[in-house]
Amino acid sequence: MNFTSDNWAGVHPAITENLARHAPGLAAAYGTSELDRRIERRFCEIFEREVAVYFVGTGTAANSLALAAVNRPGGVSFCHREAHMVKDECGAPEYFTGGARLQTVEGAAGKINLSELTRELKGFRPDFIHAGQPMAVSITQATEVGTIYQLDEIAAVGAVGRERNLPLHMDGARFANALVSLGVTPAEMTWKQGVDIVSFGGTKNGCWCAEALVFFNPDDAKDLPYIRKRAAQLFSKTRFIAAQFEAYLQNDLWLKLASHANAMAASLAGAVKRSSQCRLAWDTHANEVFVIVPATLAAEWKHQGAGFHEWPVPVDLLGKISGDEVLARLVANFATTEEEVAAFASLPGLG
Amino acid sequence: MNFTSDNWAGVHPAITENLARHAPGLAAAYGTSELDRRIERRFCEIFEREVAVYFVGTGTAANSLALAAVNRPGGVSFCHREAHMVKDECGAPEYFTGGARLQTVEGAAGKINLSELTRELKGFRPDFIHAGQPMAVSITQATEVGTIYQLDEIAAVGAVGRERNLPLHMDGARFANALVSLGVTPAEMTWKQGVDIVSFGGTKNGCWCAEALVFFNPDDAKDLPYIRKRAAQLFSKTRFIAAQFEAYLQNDLWLKLASHANAMAASLAGAVKRSSQCRLAWDTHANEVFVIVPATLAAEWKHQGAGFHEWPVPVDLLGKISGDEVLARLVANFATTEEEVAAFASLPGLG
Amino acid sequence: MNFTSDNWAGVHPAITENLARHAPGLAAAYGTSELDRRIERRFCEIFEREVAVYFVGTGTAANSLALAAVNRPGGVSFCHREAHMVKDECGAPEYFTGGARLQTVEGAAGKINLSELTRELKGFRPDFIHAGQPMAVSITQATEVGTIYQLDEIAAVGAVGRERNLPLHMDGARFANALVSLGVTPAEMTWKQGVDIVSFGGTKNGCWCAEALVFFNPDDAKDLPYIRKRAAQLFSKTRFIAAQFEAYLQNDLWLKLASHANAMAASLAGAVKRSSQCRLAWDTHANEVFVIVPATLAAEWKHQGAGFHEWPVPVDLLGKISGDEVLARLVANFATTEEEVAAFASLPGLG
Amino acid sequence: MNFTSDNWAGVHPAITENLARHAPGLAAAYGTSELDRRIERRFCEIFEREVAVYFVGTGTAANSLALAAVNRPGGVSFCHREAHMVKDECGAPEYFTGGARLQTVEGAAGKINLSELTRELKGFRPDFIHAGQPMAVSITQATEVGTIYQLDEIAAVGAVGRERNLPLHMDGARFANALVSLGVTPAEMTWKQGVDIVSFGGTKNGCWCAEALVFFNPDDAKDLPYIRKRAAQLFSKTRFIAAQFEAYLQNDLWLKLASHANAMAASLAGAVKRSSQCRLAWDTHANEVFVIVPATLAAEWKHQGAGFHEWPVPVDLLGKISGDEVLARLVANFATTEEEVAAFASLPGLG
Repeated sequence: MNFTSDNWAGVHPAITENLARHAPGLAAAYGTSELDRRIERRFCEIFEREVAVYFVGTGTAANSLALAAVNRPGGVSFCHREAHMVKDECGAPEYFTGGARLQTVEGAAGKINLSELTRELKGFRPDFIHAGQPMAVSITQATEVGTIYQLDEIAAVGAVGRERNLPLHMDGARFANALVSLGVTPAEMTWKQGVDIVSFGGTKNGCWCAEALVFFNPDDAKDLPYIRKRAAQLFSKTRFIAAQFEAYLQNDLWLKLASHANAMAASLAGAVKRSSQCRLAWDTHANEVFVIVPATLAAEWKHQGAGFHEWPVPVDLLGKISGDEVLARLVANFATTEEEVAAFASLPGLG
Repeated sequence: MNFTSDNWAGVHPAITENLARHAPGLAAAYGTSELDRRIERRFCEIFEREVAVYFVGTGTAANSLALAAVNRPGGVSFCHREAHMVKDECGAPEYFTGGARLQTVEGAAGKINLSELTRELKGFRPDFIHAGQPMAVSITQATEVGTIYQLDEIAAVGAVGRERNLPLHMDGARFANALVSLGVTPAEMTWKQGVDIVSFGGTKNGCWCAEALVFFNPDDAKDLPYIRKRAAQLFSKTRFIAAQFEAYLQNDLWLKLASHANAMAASLAGAVKRSSQCRLAWDTHANEVFVIVPATLAAEWKHQGAGFHEWPVPVDLLGKISGDEVLARLVANFATTEEEVAAFASLPGLG
Repeated sequence: MNFTSDNWAGVHPAITENLARHAPGLAAAYGTSELDRRIERRFCEIFEREVAVYFVGTGTAANSLALAAVNRPGGVSFCHREAHMVKDECGAPEYFTGGARLQTVEGAAGKINLSELTRELKGFRPDFIHAGQPMAVSITQATEVGTIYQLDEIAAVGAVGRERNLPLHMDGARFANALVSLGVTPAEMTWKQGVDIVSFGGTKNGCWCAEALVFFNPDDAKDLPYIRKRAAQLFSKTRFIAAQFEAYLQNDLWLKLASHANAMAASLAGAVKRSSQCRLAWDTHANEVFVIVPATLAAEWKHQGAGFHEWPVPVDLLGKISGDEVLARLVANFATTEEEVAAFASLPGLG
Repeated sequence: MNFTSDNWAGVHPAITENLARHAPGLAAAYGTSELDRRIERRFCEIFEREVAVYFVGTGTAANSLALAAVNRPGGVSFCHREAHMVKDECGAPEYFTGGARLQTVEGAAGKINLSELTRELKGFRPDFIHAGQPMAVSITQATEVGTIYQLDEIAAVGAVGRERNLPLHMDGARFANALVSLGVTPAEMTWKQGVDIVSFGGTKNGCWCAEALVFFNPDDAKDLPYIRKRAAQLFSKTRFIAAQFEAYLQNDLWLKLASHANAMAASLAGAVKRSSQCRLAWDTHANEVFVIVPATLAAEWKHQGAGFHEWPVPVDLLGKISGDEVLARLVANFATTEEEVAAFASLPGLG
């Protein structure tokens, strides 16, 4: 009954098998093997257009190199105040960009508020170099609090940035979870809404380390080969990232795994909704469930073997959560079982 | 008959199997699992003392973060002019240190010349801040040209640096190949000779991506948790690096694989020594063979299916190689077969 | 009638004369002349204790190098959301620190709110490396909105930081204006309240380019000679910064100039207070006056020759200023005349 | 009798007077005053074409920002092994570029050897990202050892770089000294020979801190406003740099001062040439004289009051200088007097 994080999960058997299948033999190193090339092409199919794809080892690398690719001196990027980039990457985006700032933007339920974004952008006038120059807008899909941008919401954020010629980056650490939740195609969730760069995550959804940086505008990526190598993210045997993606993208495995995780999360959320002692902080649309629960009850759940994080309370929840309550984050993953969910549902206060 | 590089090789079956064994189930992420902890302890056994160990994904990351750990403002590090750090890492060490310089030092056969190191260091006087401040000395073992520092040579380089309080870093991308060639223990090849930090490579010797940054002085590593995370090298499922090392270090697998590669390289070198049309650039002590060969003959070898790199001619070979000769680098790996070696030995000019 | 900024002012005659006095002759370069040394000692007298002093050319340099001196990997510094560091330095602090983040803190009237600072700091737990590690707290005295921290307020901010071992930095671009406003000594306004580092500004108060980075804890400054040189802030003829400070600090010139500017600002504020058409945004305690004024009236003032900036409305004024009002910033400087103030007071709406 | 460095000299009276003349009154800050604009135009006249000009405070800043302007990820710049950038700027170029490497090139008498440059560049193949990508070539005029590139030599270095599309940067810390030595125009010494960017120094030749970054290709400078501000080099009262240049460039003052310094150096060199106990290391063409002199004699000169640096022996002098000799550097400056030169000429061993 471990809902601590989807990155606590292991590796799906089909991916493990594919790693084993490609283990023997020699192949060109540093991203130049036939397999690398073939899987890069696979991404073009997935996104229904030409894309530039770069495999990297961690989501933090993908996000940071995306910003590094489009950064300019005095660059400032805009993201939600709870964004992973800001809260959980130890300053990597600033480090890899040589000091670009992440300007946080307020917004309810983990999503950038358009008026706030517009207001923040106004602080940067083209003739006022002292403030720096806006460089990109980044959204997370699914968001850090388990919510999802609707297609028109993505387009709207992109449009605000585009008035200032800012590319739109999507942190897709949970790309698949969002995709199956919306029931749309990768193209519809990205470039058709104005997304320019995607951090396409596989790790949280059954791979062991497979992240892809996907550019819809090749110009943005022209220095990426150098950027990636200089950032120590060009693996010599990068074909084993390709091998993970090969299995991940085959036969809709990625979509099935994400659907499963989302369904398990929905069941967890259902148990919470039926409870009179705890409540959902936000509706659950992907694989994360945030529960406002009395601290004593949360402790009892842990005592009975439930694994989950107590989460820092975001600003937009302040005032909605009392002093003796905590915010519990439950994450379902590709391997979460119905037994685990049932065990959760039978915990005190949820019966 | 592919001798292009040891990083063209795949993954040893024992390592693949161990990845598969650990694939199911959940475990703590970000380097905190029981397996991570256990394999970190394993490094203490291997090195016969307490060490601080940090798993990272690439050798470039290990080298760069080693320097980042000990760097100070205006820092300058010293390495051989053919060092991988300088020639093959796209400026990553400078990037990750925020601009520390790599000062190259001359030396025959890929090894730092002590007098040259002493002379270069003299250029940095404690009262002359304009030149910057020396920060570390780095050697590669085995070297980039397939040679090996003897134990007393390691100690001697370390001693020169120590007069200036400089830590000694060892780029051990081919640590195992050097170790079995010298027939000594890891402790003898490192801290007993004054080495302070090791980039301990597993990737070139049968892993898919397993590198460890090993510090003998915990003080050098006190900010490493932040340094690694900020550098996007803290994998969420880092236990799968640990799993590679678990198999790699079990039953002397790493030493057996390196011994095999070295033996295959010795056979390749033997074929060259018997030839009247080509010759060794340096004696072969690890798994790399450098051959001075007429360009036409090299082309014929390639035509007949031999895979190898033509290598940039190092300064100390200038004048020893004629205009119609090239320098061919042949690398044996853990999976190189006797058949491949025999096929090479039967190429024209080697008969 | 130009109140655009105190850095629009020129150079006080006594400082110009001192530059001329030191112009002839040779002297040791790069901060090692007798004059440099003597003026460094002068700062010890001013602050009544041993201090480490480094002259630099701009306030942005002083602030950025202060943070660079105390930064560590993954470092995060805390400052008010309207701080000059964040709003007006084009990312220099992040750039010079190699990517340290500035975490903004809310607070009324340009001053950090203690509860908000405490709350933000709680987000950084020593065992949670993903968020980064707190590194310093920075306050601006006088603040960007012309207000002033009282001595106990400085001590209180410092105390919150000290619980986390964070040094307290004071951006003293308008140090003298604050000092004479409080009527205290430099020691009382700084280290006696727990300040560890001061950006001591002379430029805005009558010098042409004279800023000093003052450390009360020599350990914080041990790499500063390299940090300053590497940052291109070690002037070869640095003695001409020393010469500016020599005149500036002689016979209380700096205090007299600041008192004058503050008095002129008080007169400007008085004219506003008497008006029924505009009002003060905050009480005026130093040399900056912020006026909430109808946009049409502000335009008329400009039309009649008044120079001032319309200022971005800080968050804590939102709701207190109507849609047809603007925020005008008037800055008095060391050379502002009573005639200019009188001319302002006779503008429409102020009579 | 002080020949330690031209940056030990003070400020020329005409420049001091002009600073005083502009001291009163208010003017737009941050490089936007009428005077700033006018002096920027003056540079267009000096160089006989449109140029983009940015005033900065130090030569190290000018050089570093020049490289920052044209750098790309994995960037490598080429300069002579004795270049100021490498030897005397404490890593500032690497720091400001976020880690670009300076690849040193051999060459006699302080000048880049064309074959060596060509050879080094060959190490960087467009398809081999591991080595990084060449970014710029930089020469120093006059060089660090007091020699001068002839016009065709400048053109030749530029041509080698241009084959790889590399801009040519000229570190002109002693631009005027070289110019009057060659007897050509600024245009002839720069863009007409293929120079793209100049660090135009005034400080060593009579200013107190006046350096200009001059771009002949505006595209190279498009982010310079942000680059300069972010680098803390945008002075608020930048008009006082402009004021220095105004006087410096008026009535050929700069050329007269440089001619004087060169003439004094020629006299110093003449005294050495007449000596049987010491000799010139290189011919003197600008304002620096390098003398190979017995250590005991050099000590005697110092004892008798001569000020000069003993200089690190460059590689191309090794073998030409015996163990009991040292290399003395004598620098004449704009204010060096004939009396000082005569005093030097009457020292022991020079009679």
